[in-house]
Amino acid sequence: MGEFGMDRRGFNRRVLMGGAAVATSLAVAPESSGAPALAAPARTAPAGGAVRHLRLHMERLADGQLGYGLVRGAATVPGPLIELNEGDTLHIEVENTLDVAASLHVHGLDYEISSDGTALSRSDVPPGGTRTYTWRTHRPGRRSDGTWRAGSAGYWHYHDHVVGTEHGTGGIRAGLYGPVIVRREGDVLPDATHTVVFNDMLINNRPAHSGPDFEATVGDRVEFVSITHGEYYHTFHLHGHRWADNRTGLLTGPDDPSRVIDNKICGPADSFGFQVIAGEGVGAGAWMYHCHVQSHSDMGMVGLFLVRKADGTVPGYDPHDHGTHDHGAGAQDSGGHDHGRDG
Amino acid sequence: MGEFGMDRRGFNRRVLMGGAAVATSLAVAPESSGAPALAAPARTAPAGGAVRHLRLHMERLADGQLGYGLVRGAATVPGPLIELNEGDTLHIEVENTLDVAASLHVHGLDYEISSDGTALSRSDVPPGGTRTYTWRTHRPGRRSDGTWRAGSAGYWHYHDHVVGTEHGTGGIRAGLYGPVIVRREGDVLPDATHTVVFNDMLINNRPAHSGPDFEATVGDRVEFVSITHGEYYHTFHLHGHRWADNRTGLLTGPDDPSRVIDNKICGPADSFGFQVIAGEGVGAGAWMYHCHVQSHSDMGMVGLFLVRKADGTVPGYDPHDHGTHDHGAGAQDSGGHDHGRDG
Amino acid sequence: MGEFGMDRRGFNRRVLMGGAAVATSLAVAPESSGAPALAAPARTAPAGGAVRHLRLHMERLADGQLGYGLVRGAATVPGPLIELNEGDTLHIEVENTLDVAASLHVHGLDYEISSDGTALSRSDVPPGGTRTYTWRTHRPGRRSDGTWRAGSAGYWHYHDHVVGTEHGTGGIRAGLYGPVIVRREGDVLPDATHTVVFNDMLINNRPAHSGPDFEATVGDRVEFVSITHGEYYHTFHLHGHRWADNRTGLLTGPDDPSRVIDNKICGPADSFGFQVIAGEGVGAGAWMYHCHVQSHSDMGMVGLFLVRKADGTVPGYDPHDHGTHDHGAGAQDSGGHDHGRDG
Repeated sequence: MGEFGMDRRGFNRRVLMGGAAVATSLAVAPESSGAPALAAPARTAPAGGAVRHLRLHMERLADGQLGYGLVRGAATVPGPLIELNEGDTLHIEVENTLDVAASLHVHGLDYEISSDGTALSRSDVPPGGTRTYTWRTHRPGRRSDGTWRAGSAGYWHYHDHVVGTEHGTGGIRAGLYGPVIVRREGDVLPDATHTVVFNDMLINNRPAHSGPDFEATVGDRVEFVSITHGEYYHTFHLHGHRWADNRTGLLTGPDDPSRVIDNKICGPADSFGFQVIAGEGVGAGAWMYHCHVQSHSDMGMVGLFLVRKADGTVPGYDPHDHGTHDHGAGAQDSGGHDHGRDG
Repeated sequence: MGEFGMDRRGFNRRVLMGGAAVATSLAVAPESSGAPALAAPARTAPAGGAVRHLRLHMERLADGQLGYGLVRGAATVPGPLIELNEGDTLHIEVENTLDVAASLHVHGLDYEISSDGTALSRSDVPPGGTRTYTWRTHRPGRRSDGTWRAGSAGYWHYHDHVVGTEHGTGGIRAGLYGPVIVRREGDVLPDATHTVVFNDMLINNRPAHSGPDFEATVGDRVEFVSITHGEYYHTFHLHGHRWADNRTGLLTGPDDPSRVIDNKICGPADSFGFQVIAGEGVGAGAWMYHCHVQSHSDMGMVGLFLVRKADGTVPGYDPHDHGTHDHGAGAQDSGGHDHGRDG
Repeated sequence: MGEFGMDRRGFNRRVLMGGAAVATSLAVAPESSGAPALAAPARTAPAGGAVRHLRLHMERLADGQLGYGLVRGAATVPGPLIELNEGDTLHIEVENTLDVAASLHVHGLDYEISSDGTALSRSDVPPGGTRTYTWRTHRPGRRSDGTWRAGSAGYWHYHDHVVGTEHGTGGIRAGLYGPVIVRREGDVLPDATHTVVFNDMLINNRPAHSGPDFEATVGDRVEFVSITHGEYYHTFHLHGHRWADNRTGLLTGPDDPSRVIDNKICGPADSFGFQVIAGEGVGAGAWMYHCHVQSHSDMGMVGLFLVRKADGTVPGYDPHDHGTHDHGAGAQDSGGHDHGRDG
């Protein structure tokens, strides 16, 4: 517990840019699974268009790793989840408390070259300095030439691009990375979001064989964000749950041809996300997620998705019972973010 | 020939859970390729919903490898192909004849934690023991919250999760793996299915430079299931034939945006499948399939898709003519399963 | 500059099989981005069906590398871009001026086994010899059995399959590879196409830290073709621009579920392509593209997408200013092909 400042993480790690609205337009026609006919419709993302401001601090943690944090002295690995809705603009004032230049480079979003976060574009932050990066997002739409322009929605991420090498190899290795989600109006919102970063041979820069584990109750809508960094390729595998290999990880309907998978190869800077209903069709349990490259899982790139019954128990799971999988007495929340639930 | 008990494989390696029905609802409008206008519509998968029972034996083969088999003394590598239709339930009584604990872990299907096949969930099988695993599948449908739930259809696979390490690294390396196909009602059925497992540097645990080869006649609808295991990434390449990078490997129609490919990167536990019409647009021939990582193909991760003319000949192919590609006098059927053909 | 005969490359490297037509049928409804309402509709690919002839020369370049060229003494690495429209047939007379057997093997297209370009099929070219390979392409359509047959459209590639090993490991390493694009009628045409081949640890067989760089002006429709060869996996990343992970790299419209990405894992013989509007939403700049495997980018698998303002300047970019990224005074055109622009 508590390595890398995990215990300092809390709700404020999640940055909600625009909040959540209860969907009213989604026609609901219950027809499967014997689920209650009167269940509330899933909450969905509102329209974007907000202009927001945020501060991020690049810091050295007590154990020597590096992290981004929303509050001075509270940096984490991964850094805070930043959520936007298509159309939002975010101005991020980044303070560099390190003794070397560092930066903020984001994937997937719109930014001018002055917000690229590279030495080449002179958009890094000197030691002790501050720089404002501006990220923009846009809705999909038709261009004037008749072609379709994709929107910004996606499971993206940010990271340093200058510490150690001109590609930020040292900064990324030490922990300077974090998740970004851009949602489209109408996208289904989860009850909780968990970030899993395969960084070289570690998950979220934690020691091997120490998770992180994530907790949920059967029926929760849980979102996973998978990001890869470093040198190696990996395959992300989750037991007992699957997702669609498309933008949202959810099929759009019966005509969506996307492959449904529970295992996905990924390399450095790849990112994807998906939502599952915890225990859907399979029930409660201590469901492993792990890299499926055999030596990587054997060396400890493993965590648990602890899905509890409504009474709080996890059938067949005794946290004191398994030796090499040293998770301690409870689940950790590294990389986890709980959403408020309405209703 | 005959290594790994290949000669003991036969039709009974294919487990048909639900059988095949001749489609009558598919409107057929011949309009391409100059194919005969009176061709029979493709056979399609029936609705699922059956409850089935199966026995699997985990055994040591004569050469020291490990395999799953439907009949005692007849285990194979890969293990038997298990086919289900969405809605089916399968109870598998697994007997462990090995001198170490072993298990059955499946990808993609619904199972309770007691069928996870992991030591963590105490769902492995002790030496000499027997355990029943239950796999369920479901059709797609709309949840009561209005969101779309994906069905179980896909090209999946099963493997040991406990021999050697808590991730089954030893069991998988030795051959404890096999294919699972879950079909959706209306999915097109093939004439034959071939399984190709890239397991470390071998295909289906065979010696390098020894296939397996697969035979077909021009016009056959041939299905390939590609599974990767072990430590390395690979790229699966087939000469002269392509597929869609989606759920079925077949485009759903003109609006399906999926990429059509003939080469695909894959890592451990990834799986995908597709169907080709043997020789379509290219004719008969000895068409290579191989890993396209150059050192892997050079070291022998290569086999042949032998597409014969109606008269049984393969133009330009003399099995006795090429030295390093040692396939012997005929095609092997390792990993191959012939379907009965109607009509 | 000029290593590998780059300065000998010119417009004739691009082989237009069928040319371009101005679309007249595309309904244009400008509704986004504040773009001018009177912009011309995007040019689109015409119907195919042509029968073409081409000569390719396999040669040793001055620096010892090997290449394909349209004209004797003008081979390049990568080889010339070959563009076809679905329905076209291409007969390629290949002359082998090398002192070893070499061949032409293509991905994705239709060819008989006699055009496979492998030693196994005896379709290679002896030293000093000539051989004609025939590539065919086809439109999508419905088969007589009611199933949908994919068309040939895609971002494909060709390469040697016999130099050094029976998989052409020596030929590919030395530079015997090139891009093929097959377009569907109505596919949007770019203003320029750039080919980026990650071949082992080099891009287009150039020395590390030397690009290639590609130039464009804000608003240009620029197409990238990504091909991987050799031994390693890579992740292709482009700063400030994204694409759809589907056939064309462009979403077909609001219902296309494809993931939008700016980073993609790829292994040997994988290929994909996409188009971006240079600087769209982000403006001019020296936008890096690179392999995102950290050691690979650090070792120099990096180039620049130099997007100029209308006045020709690139904000914040001084080509003389950055030491390790040695691109010289201007952009190189290795792998680049300019299209004529109408209007």
